[in-house]
Amino acid sequence: MMEIVASVNVACGMHAGDPTVMHRVVVKAKERGVSIGAHPGFSDLVGFGRRRIDMAAADLEYLIAYQIGALSAVAAYAGLKVTHVKPHGALHAMAAANPDYAMAIGRAIRAVDRDAIYLVTAGSEMEAAAQRLDLPLAREAFVDRVYDDDGALQSRAVAGAVITDAKVAAERCVRLVETGEIVSAGGKRIPLRFDSLCVHGDEPTAVAVAGACRSALEAAGIAVVALPDMLS
Amino acid sequence: MMEIVASVNVACGMHAGDPTVMHRVVVKAKERGVSIGAHPGFSDLVGFGRRRIDMAAADLEYLIAYQIGALSAVAAYAGLKVTHVKPHGALHAMAAANPDYAMAIGRAIRAVDRDAIYLVTAGSEMEAAAQRLDLPLAREAFVDRVYDDDGALQSRAVAGAVITDAKVAAERCVRLVETGEIVSAGGKRIPLRFDSLCVHGDEPTAVAVAGACRSALEAAGIAVVALPDMLS
Amino acid sequence: MMEIVASVNVACGMHAGDPTVMHRVVVKAKERGVSIGAHPGFSDLVGFGRRRIDMAAADLEYLIAYQIGALSAVAAYAGLKVTHVKPHGALHAMAAANPDYAMAIGRAIRAVDRDAIYLVTAGSEMEAAAQRLDLPLAREAFVDRVYDDDGALQSRAVAGAVITDAKVAAERCVRLVETGEIVSAGGKRIPLRFDSLCVHGDEPTAVAVAGACRSALEAAGIAVVALPDMLS
Amino acid sequence: MMEIVASVNVACGMHAGDPTVMHRVVVKAKERGVSIGAHPGFSDLVGFGRRRIDMAAADLEYLIAYQIGALSAVAAYAGLKVTHVKPHGALHAMAAANPDYAMAIGRAIRAVDRDAIYLVTAGSEMEAAAQRLDLPLAREAFVDRVYDDDGALQSRAVAGAVITDAKVAAERCVRLVETGEIVSAGGKRIPLRFDSLCVHGDEPTAVAVAGACRSALEAAGIAVVALPDMLS
Repeated sequence: MMEIVASVNVACGMHAGDPTVMHRVVVKAKERGVSIGAHPGFSDLVGFGRRRIDMAAADLEYLIAYQIGALSAVAAYAGLKVTHVKPHGALHAMAAANPDYAMAIGRAIRAVDRDAIYLVTAGSEMEAAAQRLDLPLAREAFVDRVYDDDGALQSRAVAGAVITDAKVAAERCVRLVETGEIVSAGGKRIPLRFDSLCVHGDEPTAVAVAGACRSALEAAGIAVVALPDMLS
Repeated sequence: MMEIVASVNVACGMHAGDPTVMHRVVVKAKERGVSIGAHPGFSDLVGFGRRRIDMAAADLEYLIAYQIGALSAVAAYAGLKVTHVKPHGALHAMAAANPDYAMAIGRAIRAVDRDAIYLVTAGSEMEAAAQRLDLPLAREAFVDRVYDDDGALQSRAVAGAVITDAKVAAERCVRLVETGEIVSAGGKRIPLRFDSLCVHGDEPTAVAVAGACRSALEAAGIAVVALPDMLS
Repeated sequence: MMEIVASVNVACGMHAGDPTVMHRVVVKAKERGVSIGAHPGFSDLVGFGRRRIDMAAADLEYLIAYQIGALSAVAAYAGLKVTHVKPHGALHAMAAANPDYAMAIGRAIRAVDRDAIYLVTAGSEMEAAAQRLDLPLAREAFVDRVYDDDGALQSRAVAGAVITDAKVAAERCVRLVETGEIVSAGGKRIPLRFDSLCVHGDEPTAVAVAGACRSALEAAGIAVVALPDMLS
Repeated sequence: MMEIVASVNVACGMHAGDPTVMHRVVVKAKERGVSIGAHPGFSDLVGFGRRRIDMAAADLEYLIAYQIGALSAVAAYAGLKVTHVKPHGALHAMAAANPDYAMAIGRAIRAVDRDAIYLVTAGSEMEAAAQRLDLPLAREAFVDRVYDDDGALQSRAVAGAVITDAKVAAERCVRLVETGEIVSAGGKRIPLRFDSLCVHGDEPTAVAVAGACRSALEAAGIAVVALPDMLS
């Protein structure tokens, strides 16, 4: 997978991952020249961070800081810095809509490393929080997920919400980069502001989808670069 | 407690503590001018880190780095650095005797912050590891624990191994600083090399013991300073 | 505490408790002639089960069955049966209002032991679920908690929601038993249907409150009996 | 896998498994007519129960009872009983050699269900404990593991300790049943007393190995039956 992507999100031990797995990912990222981001989630190994947990915003904030710090220390083994932060799973969905959660994540980033990029969805509360806190931000589009007509990600609970056909994904990907638009579940053309493209690594089709996207982008003359290079 | 001590060891979420508790401790440490150290332990909340776990040295190393990094991030809220590292509970006992564990901890310190002090026991494998890795080290004596005749800490499983009488502890403390010797369980006078004095915070008598020790030291004209100041 | 109450709720290792603690509680319950109930909660040691977790009803159902079974096995050491089930913390609050959660708990009780009592709040979805599943049920009133004007428990987040004054609690308790009414936060007299009275054991004032209530009830000529005896 | 074996060991949530996974396994076991056993392990999800943990025998005993009870409750959904208990991973290795651990497991079985079979290795401390406690026992041989010359299982840390070649495993399997002997790593023929044959389900080659063994046994006219039928 790391031969394909330019930036990778690393689970930090709460919903998945453990220090040894994190170390392995970080060393591979270094070898491939891939930038790394913290992918903090709820404390929920059994639920893989996909269950919404209703916690005090301050508790969440320190939990995020904790995870960023933990990954930073492990990344030091490879001489890498954590260059972006993107919440995982249910936390991502909640932070998109809930300003308290979005700000808690932003405050954690600011406390630990105010140069780290807050990886957000355009139009979300995370984007607003990043702007309010004056943090570097990148907007992310999802290559392998269907969008609702209002521009939100369709829930994974809906059949077909995850695109597993590599060819379909690759076409969406190039069209998105070339037109700045995505075609929604209902057939609407939705303008989508983005700086970054995401492929979910936990789908069995992930490598095929990511590979097809990268090839299609390069065939269309579009370079794939790491997040920090994208923004600088 | 923090009004008495000069340096504090912070549990990092594996055997005790959670990000919110860590944040609270760190903020209080800042207010009191107390230096903080990481107190990493085994992943064992139920056993409070007091059970020996036999894990690969590499897995242990990354687990320690993870905990130091997590605390460093939380400490950033108070503008504090983690200035020392001292393993907790069963990990402390194992690292004292097992060179692989002692080196794993040392390597984790070196990877995350090679200026952090490895807080060791004189004569232990931890001391040897710190020297081999050329890390700053401080030797610690235990004010509230009985020593065996061979200079090792008596196991907590032995009745009376923990000294809970504040007056007794205070006298031992002053005598130790003045003579450099401790009287063992068997009545032997054992020379003890140390740079730091430890009182266990998890005993109900901890505050009384620590307070009596500090007062007795000050009455004897001995200053109590934070670890980094001690070594510099 | 067990010298005062007649039935006790035992945390089952997910939000609190561990097998050794459960064993100790069960043995004490046996000595005191106190009946035991399972007090299952969310998997959340750090949050003490006080955070709402949004999980699939089926996952919740098996998680509850798991906890009832675990306690039943430990209770076997004392020759005791688990005679009631009462969800803990955030799970209790969610199950009171959410029929899927209320039914999931009821189905778990039915699968494991259809004679166990579902301990519910009058008017809640738990009561409805117990009735729909034809499970033995008992309605519980809270001696140490303030009620809103609509008869719901006031959130613990509200200052004063927990009654810590033993005398006040004892008076409420006797009046409740004698009149079947509770006086709400807003001064309204609310009729409250109940078979069981609850005192929270995790408040520092719990023993004083429970003792005062028991004494006051006995002084008023009201007997305190275990749940199974209450219903039979 | 369940189409091949006659009895299955179910992880109980401590080193692997969760209530929903346990439920799924139990329902499948019922469909296939496969008997189920509890496969309790250390509390160590990250280490998959493969790390030795040094805990008080009493704590271990209640932890085992807890896990058997939890599985029993989930098994009730399929109308199944837990008919045997076999410790997992590092706990299995420790209980084979350590009489305190072996007895703790035996006592837990006796407390929860004294008719459940203690699945042991011939000559181990577990066998001795089962006999001392007068529990039904079955001796297990490992089809996919190499034995040392002294009859102990070769450590998984040794390369080649796990047999992944289905044909080799099948031949060993039939020879073992027909001759009652296994050929050790050093080429010695070792008599092996057994009532049960184990294939590890967590190897990628598990299904192939188990299938080849079953076919070979049946071709040799040997029936494969569930553990309770074996002993009755």
